[in-house]
Amino acid sequence: MTLGPQTRETLQPAPAWEVARWFNADAPLSPEALKGQVIVLGAFQLLCPGCVSHGVPQLARAAATFDPADVAVVGLHTVFEHHDAQGPATLEAFLHEYRVTFPVGVDAPSKSAAPPRTFTAYGLEGTPSLVLIDRAGRLRARTFGRADDMAFGAAVAGLIAESGVTAGSNAGAETDRIAAATPAGDCKDGSCAL
Amino acid sequence: MTLGPQTRETLQPAPAWEVARWFNADAPLSPEALKGQVIVLGAFQLLCPGCVSHGVPQLARAAATFDPADVAVVGLHTVFEHHDAQGPATLEAFLHEYRVTFPVGVDAPSKSAAPPRTFTAYGLEGTPSLVLIDRAGRLRARTFGRADDMAFGAAVAGLIAESGVTAGSNAGAETDRIAAATPAGDCKDGSCAL
Amino acid sequence: MTLGPQTRETLQPAPAWEVARWFNADAPLSPEALKGQVIVLGAFQLLCPGCVSHGVPQLARAAATFDPADVAVVGLHTVFEHHDAQGPATLEAFLHEYRVTFPVGVDAPSKSAAPPRTFTAYGLEGTPSLVLIDRAGRLRARTFGRADDMAFGAAVAGLIAESGVTAGSNAGAETDRIAAATPAGDCKDGSCAL
Amino acid sequence: MTLGPQTRETLQPAPAWEVARWFNADAPLSPEALKGQVIVLGAFQLLCPGCVSHGVPQLARAAATFDPADVAVVGLHTVFEHHDAQGPATLEAFLHEYRVTFPVGVDAPSKSAAPPRTFTAYGLEGTPSLVLIDRAGRLRARTFGRADDMAFGAAVAGLIAESGVTAGSNAGAETDRIAAATPAGDCKDGSCAL
Repeated sequence: MTLGPQTRETLQPAPAWEVARWFNADAPLSPEALKGQVIVLGAFQLLCPGCVSHGVPQLARAAATFDPADVAVVGLHTVFEHHDAQGPATLEAFLHEYRVTFPVGVDAPSKSAAPPRTFTAYGLEGTPSLVLIDRAGRLRARTFGRADDMAFGAAVAGLIAESGVTAGSNAGAETDRIAAATPAGDCKDGSCAL
Repeated sequence: MTLGPQTRETLQPAPAWEVARWFNADAPLSPEALKGQVIVLGAFQLLCPGCVSHGVPQLARAAATFDPADVAVVGLHTVFEHHDAQGPATLEAFLHEYRVTFPVGVDAPSKSAAPPRTFTAYGLEGTPSLVLIDRAGRLRARTFGRADDMAFGAAVAGLIAESGVTAGSNAGAETDRIAAATPAGDCKDGSCAL
Repeated sequence: MTLGPQTRETLQPAPAWEVARWFNADAPLSPEALKGQVIVLGAFQLLCPGCVSHGVPQLARAAATFDPADVAVVGLHTVFEHHDAQGPATLEAFLHEYRVTFPVGVDAPSKSAAPPRTFTAYGLEGTPSLVLIDRAGRLRARTFGRADDMAFGAAVAGLIAESGVTAGSNAGAETDRIAAATPAGDCKDGSCAL
Repeated sequence: MTLGPQTRETLQPAPAWEVARWFNADAPLSPEALKGQVIVLGAFQLLCPGCVSHGVPQLARAAATFDPADVAVVGLHTVFEHHDAQGPATLEAFLHEYRVTFPVGVDAPSKSAAPPRTFTAYGLEGTPSLVLIDRAGRLRARTFGRADDMAFGAAVAGLIAESGVTAGSNAGAETDRIAAATPAGDCKDGSCAL
């Protein structure tokens, strides 16, 4: 499931993020500054139905699942339609109502009618999109549409494991993280205890 | 997210599987014979609601997500209640109706009223349970209850990556696997194409 | 949404139920004995995936939604395949594990390889199926497959209303029944309080 | 399940709708003008998570389930927070992206910091809310929070049936409406055909 070593050389450095404004961040973020961590960059628009129902909640699950020391989850609000309807004030309220706590950057608009700058620099196709950047700052995967949680989790873990960094200190926490709920007693809430 | 290297030594070898009968397998399977692969062993009962709604479908997703060369998905039908109701004939029909194609072993009954033998050998608490065994045949994680897809995928990928085996040949397939669907055109089925 | 008055005459009396054994019932039930109530008869098989995930839970919702004085919810376990796998002992365990508390009758087998008797008498096509019988004991609707909750609720209510019986005593309870949950305070669990 | 006849006298006439702007309507709508139809009025805010995930889709299901000759489904965008973020331009884009085709009125703001006028006139508690108005223009039920589809469908059908209007012309369509899908052949997509 890991992205293999022979493709590393061919993968370009992750393009810079051109962001007009950051939310949930004390200072601007960049792939350069986040080197050493795997980066999950999630592109969305607040009026994109699949982003609201799937993309943004999936980013929140990623932020809750992975150790922040290993993985940085970053949202990119990349508006390529309905510009008047998806301005910063609306985004700020959206982030509040949907309890989004990971950092979100507003993709800088282009000068023409073209899509925003980071969207273009990353060659994105639409929203929701997921971008994976490895610890060395290289663009490793891009997806468009509804991503599957299991394959996504596996891909991120594959990039974490590439690092050679010892992540052993959280061994043992694994079991707790996998199990969302451990019911007890006879069959209850679907699970059957001995 | 990987289970760290310092815990390896402390982890015991995976106990043998005591299986009365196999389905979807040409020959009996064992942790010993599957060495080299990561093993996902999923314990279930066909009348356990959480197994039917979550556990068994999750095993099927794992079988579809991971390369069989890396990961062996194996079911364990481990009946500790309603023995008359969950016999082999019923299991066979269940596997047929639910389109289960991965191998499933019937956990050998104990001589007393105790739970089945493999259930006991693995110290399971109930169903559904997930057991992860690494490429070296060591028991690495056990969970009980509803496991989260993202953390589960990450845990399996972490074990895959431990091997030192070059998995590079499937690089490039990553993107396709993550994206379950890539809609095109204007916002459709939830996603918004450029 | 109600089934109109002009079709009443053309609708045949509901055929008798030929049941080999009842669960969750003190005595055998029949359309004749239940006259005066609307009857929701739900046909299922315990190894039919759509019955387990949708049909049986929907019957349970119907039993919880409608006043038992108005509506009798009855299950019909009608086995037309995997006979050995879906016997009474397995059904009994199934009903226990899935917390089914409404009455369930085991459709009497035919003498040949034909489907069970009630299945045939009602002209069913498979499982899950829903049958609606009006207060006068007439067969009013049959469906096969996944039924929509809103349309189903409307159809049942339409039959209740046909009766001319004053159901006014539960007025006011309506609001509570519609709202499954009434969150309070700021936006929480999805709802936004003033 | 019907709202009983003895409560009719006590139910007040539905207050007028004070709407600043209509979408998906050729002319302003009112309870008065819609007399003769049952009215489902659904209050929402476009940044209210429960409205987006449940309330608005439920209104769309109601519009698809009931005969427009019997039931008018009307949305009320009633903003009591994040006013700058939920203006008409954003609402228009929201309605476009979420494929909302039923009429939606923008609740007229109050002069003070109080909630919008129709919200207050109807004594609503928050969003999402559902309001049921009978054919005679009387306010019959109000709910706040996540409403259950089956009970909601039953409540609407109960109001339809109160009318004394013959709805028989759609008899026979019932079965088709209940069944969302009728699979054929062996167990497939969950249902098992004979």
